[in-house]
Amino acid sequence: MASAEFNLERNLLVSAEHDSDLVQFITELAEKKRITAAAFTAIGALKRAKLGFYNQEKHEYQEITVDSPQELASCIGNISIKNGKPFVHVHAVLADKDGNTKAGHLFEGIVFAAEIHLRELKGAKLERKYSETTNLSLWDIK
Amino acid sequence: MASAEFNLERNLLVSAEHDSDLVQFITELAEKKRITAAAFTAIGALKRAKLGFYNQEKHEYQEITVDSPQELASCIGNISIKNGKPFVHVHAVLADKDGNTKAGHLFEGIVFAAEIHLRELKGAKLERKYSETTNLSLWDIK
Amino acid sequence: MASAEFNLERNLLVSAEHDSDLVQFITELAEKKRITAAAFTAIGALKRAKLGFYNQEKHEYQEITVDSPQELASCIGNISIKNGKPFVHVHAVLADKDGNTKAGHLFEGIVFAAEIHLRELKGAKLERKYSETTNLSLWDIK
Repeated sequence: MASAEFNLERNLLVSAEHDSDLVQFITELAEKKRITAAAFTAIGALKRAKLGFYNQEKHEYQEITVDSPQELASCIGNISIKNGKPFVHVHAVLADKDGNTKAGHLFEGIVFAAEIHLRELKGAKLERKYSETTNLSLWDIK
Repeated sequence: MASAEFNLERNLLVSAEHDSDLVQFITELAEKKRITAAAFTAIGALKRAKLGFYNQEKHEYQEITVDSPQELASCIGNISIKNGKPFVHVHAVLADKDGNTKAGHLFEGIVFAAEIHLRELKGAKLERKYSETTNLSLWDIK
Repeated sequence: MASAEFNLERNLLVSAEHDSDLVQFITELAEKKRITAAAFTAIGALKRAKLGFYNQEKHEYQEITVDSPQELASCIGNISIKNGKPFVHVHAVLADKDGNTKAGHLFEGIVFAAEIHLRELKGAKLERKYSETTNLSLWDIK
């Protein structure tokens, strides 16, 4: 059972910058605050987004473009180290003006407004490593 | 980068009252427990709900009425201070009998059953302030 | 107001095993790590899943089968004690290759890859007890 134990360090509440890309914004936050492991949630609204669906047979991401304003109805993610740098992995559920949803891996989300609750974790080094089974970079924990 | 640091205080597990409004219930919980900043998640089921979509051009909420029983498939929110009082901001993803979803800002959700995990945060005062760019009350953190 | 106070203990980051059932996997994690109360979130991808919708009139679950690969766009859950054993309660939002969603109570989710952030809680005993109003086993807290 691949599980690693961490202590909770800083709890950050963060307003993502209007017009920034949420994924890039959190990546820069991690770099600036020297965060190497974290879990976070967010809510807010996006101007537009690029979602991803991982094709489990072809082992590659398919991109889904969402070109209209959306509520960020759910956003759950984590930060770990990939190739020596903080890597943000985040999934989102978006909702349009009728409450209808699109969801998946969040590649890009242009922020209208977003409130992030980030919990920094300290413990063993949390690094991503290539997994042959999935062709993804997964946590290298035993 | 508008970010504020907090310490984790009480972790509360709470059963929301049957037939209460989830948003009002959490607001009253915050008042009773003197919570001024928090992040929470919840799961459960709602009898009906009122969702919101923020029109990013007109700068106003549009209401989406959901008049049937729904699973509360995801619920992420936070508590901060607005006009001197605890203010609950919460987004939800609802799912009907076929698993089909409606989502957005949660204005009202009549509880069938709901389990809340609330993490109280202590640190700088977390207050909402009018933002001209969005016409919303956003966290006043620098 | 039925609320119980807990201290945060271990923070676990866990990679769920490829081809395992996510619900069973977290149940076994709780048993192995002797976790009696916890809250968790997860993101990842599932090969297929069984969702549930609780019929609030008939007081019984209806099952929704999802027989294709899905992003695990949101996953929120908790662990408490039911009949003397760790019981995992989890809700999920799934998204298909077009970003379209199905959501609800997660009965079973066969893991392609999944990253879990689990927060162990210690405090009063968190036990589920039959609730006549809902015909569900809800937290026995006052």
